[in-house]
Amino acid sequence: MSEQADHIAVESDCQHGDDSHRHGYIGAKDDYLKRLRRIEGQARGLQRMVDEDAYCIDILTQVSAMTKALHAVSLGLLNDHMTHCVLAAAGEGDDAARVKIDEAMAAIARLAR
Amino acid sequence: MSEQADHIAVESDCQHGDDSHRHGYIGAKDDYLKRLRRIEGQARGLQRMVDEDAYCIDILTQVSAMTKALHAVSLGLLNDHMTHCVLAAAGEGDDAARVKIDEAMAAIARLAR
Amino acid sequence: MSEQADHIAVESDCQHGDDSHRHGYIGAKDDYLKRLRRIEGQARGLQRMVDEDAYCIDILTQVSAMTKALHAVSLGLLNDHMTHCVLAAAGEGDDAARVKIDEAMAAIARLAR
Amino acid sequence: MSEQADHIAVESDCQHGDDSHRHGYIGAKDDYLKRLRRIEGQARGLQRMVDEDAYCIDILTQVSAMTKALHAVSLGLLNDHMTHCVLAAAGEGDDAARVKIDEAMAAIARLAR
Repeated sequence: MSEQADHIAVESDCQHGDDSHRHGYIGAKDDYLKRLRRIEGQARGLQRMVDEDAYCIDILTQVSAMTKALHAVSLGLLNDHMTHCVLAAAGEGDDAARVKIDEAMAAIARLAR
Repeated sequence: MSEQADHIAVESDCQHGDDSHRHGYIGAKDDYLKRLRRIEGQARGLQRMVDEDAYCIDILTQVSAMTKALHAVSLGLLNDHMTHCVLAAAGEGDDAARVKIDEAMAAIARLAR
Repeated sequence: MSEQADHIAVESDCQHGDDSHRHGYIGAKDDYLKRLRRIEGQARGLQRMVDEDAYCIDILTQVSAMTKALHAVSLGLLNDHMTHCVLAAAGEGDDAARVKIDEAMAAIARLAR
Repeated sequence: MSEQADHIAVESDCQHGDDSHRHGYIGAKDDYLKRLRRIEGQARGLQRMVDEDAYCIDILTQVSAMTKALHAVSLGLLNDHMTHCVLAAAGEGDDAARVKIDEAMAAIARLAR
């Protein structure tokens, strides 16, 4: 296999709208699904609290816990993206890596807001 | 009705573990339930994205949207708490209000982290 | 002194563009000045680090420490505002209190972003 | 020059406690110094406001502006770190890059809190 072909293969691991995906988080897919199911459960728990007229501050405490869980998912995904997609892109050259880093930075700016 | 009894009645509007609840958000209960159902739907959408190997950055964008929606719920609940529970407590005296404000400040510190 | 005059006096404690100020933080003015001087020092320290080509991550660590110190000042000011200005306004009536709470909520939304 | 020596040279661009520094932000050093001087000025402006008994909410607005300016500096430094130090490390191999990414992720977690 030529180096060129290899590079294309690597790039296709980490792309928007890509069908032959091997994204950074894939190895930990079950873990992410479990965490997101728990977060979904937290959203349902919040509805129950509102429905049962729970005390506002107690609801806010649960919203904070849920936000924290979501935040941890973000940091995990970002870490996987960096150690997988950014590194794979760096193997192809600085320009490819910069594209991935720009995307990651935009995501970080949204997270950190 | 004695002033004392009235104070107790007002306080019982906004309390942890209170059964005769009239919390600040009650008037907007349906709105909160709708927003939380949508947030629950976002949590399910995220699971689908992970399951279908969506691109990490696209997942992160959705996590940010969900975090933003949760954050808006927090600010809404906090506002309702302040205009209802804190004000009701202020009617009972500065000490009662301070208890509510302390609770609110602790919630704000958790939110703003 | 009439109750009306007293209310006006209370309101004038906590106002934008007010000259007869007694804001919530006044009692702790020296403490705030000390904290802000330390934050100013952190800003100077950061310039020194950049000037001496310190390692980016070390600079980022100091920026985080400074952000955290600023954040603590915000929460302190907000707490003082709530326990002083919001409570004073609540003494004048719900409408006056709502104006102060709206202002506080706008500040919280900016902080929590 | 051997490849090994070249790697060392590259690595020495982006290191903690390194004397032969060429960090990511160096090209924009004047810009960072200018922004940090303005932030220092904001810290002094805040002291003046507290000293002159400005309205708490007005002080909070300025604290938010200063926090925002600091935050922009963080994102800039992080971006420079990623496009310079992380990429340089990636050129040396995945292990070197992972060390830099871990550092960056720890900085992001502190920022995004």
